[in-house]
Amino acid sequence: LCFGVVCNAAPDPSQRDSLMRQETSRQIGGKVTLTAAEMKLDARLRGMKEHEMSLPSFPPAIHFFKAKPLIEKSPIFTLLQKMPKGGALHIHSSTLVGVDWLVRNVTYRHHCYICFTRDQSVRFVFSTGHPWPTWDCFYWYLLETLRAEMGDPAPFDNSLIQNLTLFTEDPDVAYPSQDVVWEKFEKAFVVASGLITHAPVLRDYLYKGLEELHRDNIMYLELRSGLARTYELDGSVHDKVWYLKTIQEVTQKFVKDHPDFLGTRIIITVHRTLSVSRVKAAVMDAIQMQRDFPNVVAGFDLVGREDSGRNLWYFRDALLLPANLGLVLPYFFHAGETDEEGTDVDENILDALLLNTTRIGHGYALPHHPLAKELSRAGNVAVELCPISNQVLKLVSDLRNHPAAVLMSEGHPLVISSDDPSLFGNAGLSYDFYQAFVGIGGLKANLGTLKELAANSIKYSSLPPHLKDAGLVLWGKKWDMFISTNVY
Amino acid sequence: LCFGVVCNAAPDPSQRDSLMRQETSRQIGGKVTLTAAEMKLDARLRGMKEHEMSLPSFPPAIHFFKAKPLIEKSPIFTLLQKMPKGGALHIHSSTLVGVDWLVRNVTYRHHCYICFTRDQSVRFVFSTGHPWPTWDCFYWYLLETLRAEMGDPAPFDNSLIQNLTLFTEDPDVAYPSQDVVWEKFEKAFVVASGLITHAPVLRDYLYKGLEELHRDNIMYLELRSGLARTYELDGSVHDKVWYLKTIQEVTQKFVKDHPDFLGTRIIITVHRTLSVSRVKAAVMDAIQMQRDFPNVVAGFDLVGREDSGRNLWYFRDALLLPANLGLVLPYFFHAGETDEEGTDVDENILDALLLNTTRIGHGYALPHHPLAKELSRAGNVAVELCPISNQVLKLVSDLRNHPAAVLMSEGHPLVISSDDPSLFGNAGLSYDFYQAFVGIGGLKANLGTLKELAANSIKYSSLPPHLKDAGLVLWGKKWDMFISTNVY
Ligand SMILES: [Zn+2]
Ligand SMILES: [Zn+2]
Repeated sequence: LCFGVVCNAAPDPSQRDSLMRQETSRQIGGKVTLTAAEMKLDARLRGMKEHEMSLPSFPPAIHFFKAKPLIEKSPIFTLLQKMPKGGALHIHSSTLVGVDWLVRNVTYRHHCYICFTRDQSVRFVFSTGHPWPTWDCFYWYLLETLRAEMGDPAPFDNSLIQNLTLFTEDPDVAYPSQDVVWEKFEKAFVVASGLITHAPVLRDYLYKGLEELHRDNIMYLELRSGLARTYELDGSVHDKVWYLKTIQEVTQKFVKDHPDFLGTRIIITVHRTLSVSRVKAAVMDAIQMQRDFPNVVAGFDLVGREDSGRNLWYFRDALLLPANLGLVLPYFFHAGETDEEGTDVDENILDALLLNTTRIGHGYALPHHPLAKELSRAGNVAVELCPISNQVLKLVSDLRNHPAAVLMSEGHPLVISSDDPSLFGNAGLSYDFYQAFVGIGGLKANLGTLKELAANSIKYSSLPPHLKDAGLVLWGKKWDMFISTNVY
Repeated sequence: LCFGVVCNAAPDPSQRDSLMRQETSRQIGGKVTLTAAEMKLDARLRGMKEHEMSLPSFPPAIHFFKAKPLIEKSPIFTLLQKMPKGGALHIHSSTLVGVDWLVRNVTYRHHCYICFTRDQSVRFVFSTGHPWPTWDCFYWYLLETLRAEMGDPAPFDNSLIQNLTLFTEDPDVAYPSQDVVWEKFEKAFVVASGLITHAPVLRDYLYKGLEELHRDNIMYLELRSGLARTYELDGSVHDKVWYLKTIQEVTQKFVKDHPDFLGTRIIITVHRTLSVSRVKAAVMDAIQMQRDFPNVVAGFDLVGREDSGRNLWYFRDALLLPANLGLVLPYFFHAGETDEEGTDVDENILDALLLNTTRIGHGYALPHHPLAKELSRAGNVAVELCPISNQVLKLVSDLRNHPAAVLMSEGHPLVISSDDPSLFGNAGLSYDFYQAFVGIGGLKANLGTLKELAANSIKYSSLPPHLKDAGLVLWGKKWDMFISTNVY
């Protein structure tokens, strides 16, 4: 019984080095040939990693909210910040920009009203006149007036930040279960929406978001967005097309100001709480929008917690529409963001592949599905790994136990992303790269791993082939510059 | 690009059922054909599991010390207790018997002395005269006298139990790190040793241990033992051969009293803190003992924490002795009981295979080693999965994230064991079967999984072929009886 080098007999101990090299060559980046300069930097990285693994508090093993200050002191993190990381392929538009800016800039603008809901949350709205009471908001206060009455608005502003992020000093106590953390998660989305659906804010917000990514050496963005209706001060409302056009315009301006940025593309999302017929309509709508904005619209996805929502197969009649009608709509499904192994939800992984998904969002459960894993690999369906999101949303506590360790060791197509940076506090991609490189990949992940992960984000993007090639060339130049300026 | 059913194209949604069946058929037990009665019981099991997954506290997701009372209330656990589980292939002799018996029976025997060490631990010794002071024990107290002076010895007895087990109400606080829990772990071994190396106690201890296993419907034992010197009341000392003979005699008596018990075999262990030359001597010694006691000695292993000890390759000159001398010594190496991915310790997995190991103890890191995983599978080198041990020793907190989920989904050769039942409180195999079946295997693990796991423990045992066959027949009868009495 032999397959490849593997036979039904004990291997020869004299082959040890060769077998170890063979195994290493299978991991992500295992086939990357490093230059002399890269090998030098790689050796330095390995030394840093060995040092970090020997410290009493190993950041990937503890909750990100506690690990964050440790990571920020890490020389590996400093290097990762400087590293050209390619594109961010899995970020949600409502959580793109750090909440500090929302509170300290946006809520200080004129005409910003706040209300305090019965469930100790808040809502915002911009309006020239006093806003109408709604079912959960009877009393609206103008923030300018409210803050004028305070001696020091700082504690108040901090409480607003609390409402917009999941951050807390003691996450294990604040979020004892997945249910609790998801409830807070969904609430924070609602709180932010009143601010960022104000049309003038949205423009600034998107530009600010691109700036934050660019500062972290990211050159491209695929943003999942529900294309929410936006509103003006007078209460007039813009539609989805306005949203798409705005993204296009803001990106064009940003690219003009930063010529090394490739662009923004949108994955249109709807919530999995919708009915099949509404998802059908959304699918048809997305097909039309992709036709009208082929440079902006990448495809379609369903969002919302998988464990408590309907699974992909429930929506099959809607999701098979393009195939059945001979139309095109690329899918980028969230799938397998669960540890409920063997349930209907767990089948989302296989169903995403059956529905011809282009990538898999999270794919946390993929290593527990050997057949789906083979399909994903054979079809070049990359997994969007968001380590910090998985930890904060309580799928795994010690990131060394993240199942993607299996995918990384096998060289599975994989990209790194941040999912909801404003909620988790993992702006840019450097924090998530740190967790994947130091925690999930372990000591055997090396500079080749980082190089392949970064290149993957262009390779598995939705960019058309000629832009992919151009993007890879540009990224390659940045990479070489990164190596030459950081090797010593 | 096609391999098997998997091609570089999206699969056909109409094949969904077929693909799901194909994937399920790969898991452990996936190729077991269930009888009508088994299918009925399987459906009931699935219902129970769905119910348990929906409860607010899911036992595999929380620490075993907190989960234990919940597990004991589970109807799945009650069934697993009745299920014939085959053999226990990974238990250490010093932790075979529940500590209640040690404290409430053994320490109440005549001539039992105790001393209190400076590090707030205790030592025991049996002696006719007053024991000599040793470096850590200046004052020895006769327990009979000590207890006579107490009003109620119960609190004192409970404190003794504390010294002999890892159990604590709040394990996360008591054991903040792997280092702390391993320190307590190694201490508890030392505390027990004074009791169970007393020759008359050892006989009773072994018999008692077999009784505990038999009561949990286990029919065979492979015990890892260092064959410690044992002592009599007068201070005279017995050697390793006496230990082996005693195991043989006690087992023979036990089998006479319980004819459905197959026997006990010993895996001789030495600690990985020894020098290469002492391990060489131990290897030669083990070869000789296996020649002299072929029915009792199964092979050889190294014990002690991998992360802080020398790795297998360090001992290669000793461990390659049998191969180089043309002699036989089967190995049963602990390997990959670590989450220090990519370190030298992590290479124990590959080295165990290079050194021709018969099974792998723990193999926690195996799914992160694709080549080693293939070698293990092709060579029928079974993994000894000890879920509760891995959780208590802090490799993983939520057992749904145990990497063996990958092995189970791929049908890797695997057996379930308990490692150190007296320390963890997981007497028998039912607790660990529960964790593997409900937690690691998830909803897709079924009665076929249980059947294959139980049969594996005979199939991958060190029994000679004719005894394996006889054992499987006997187990098969017990299994059929289990099904017929529990299906309704
Ligand atoms: Zn997401
Ligand atoms: Zn062990």
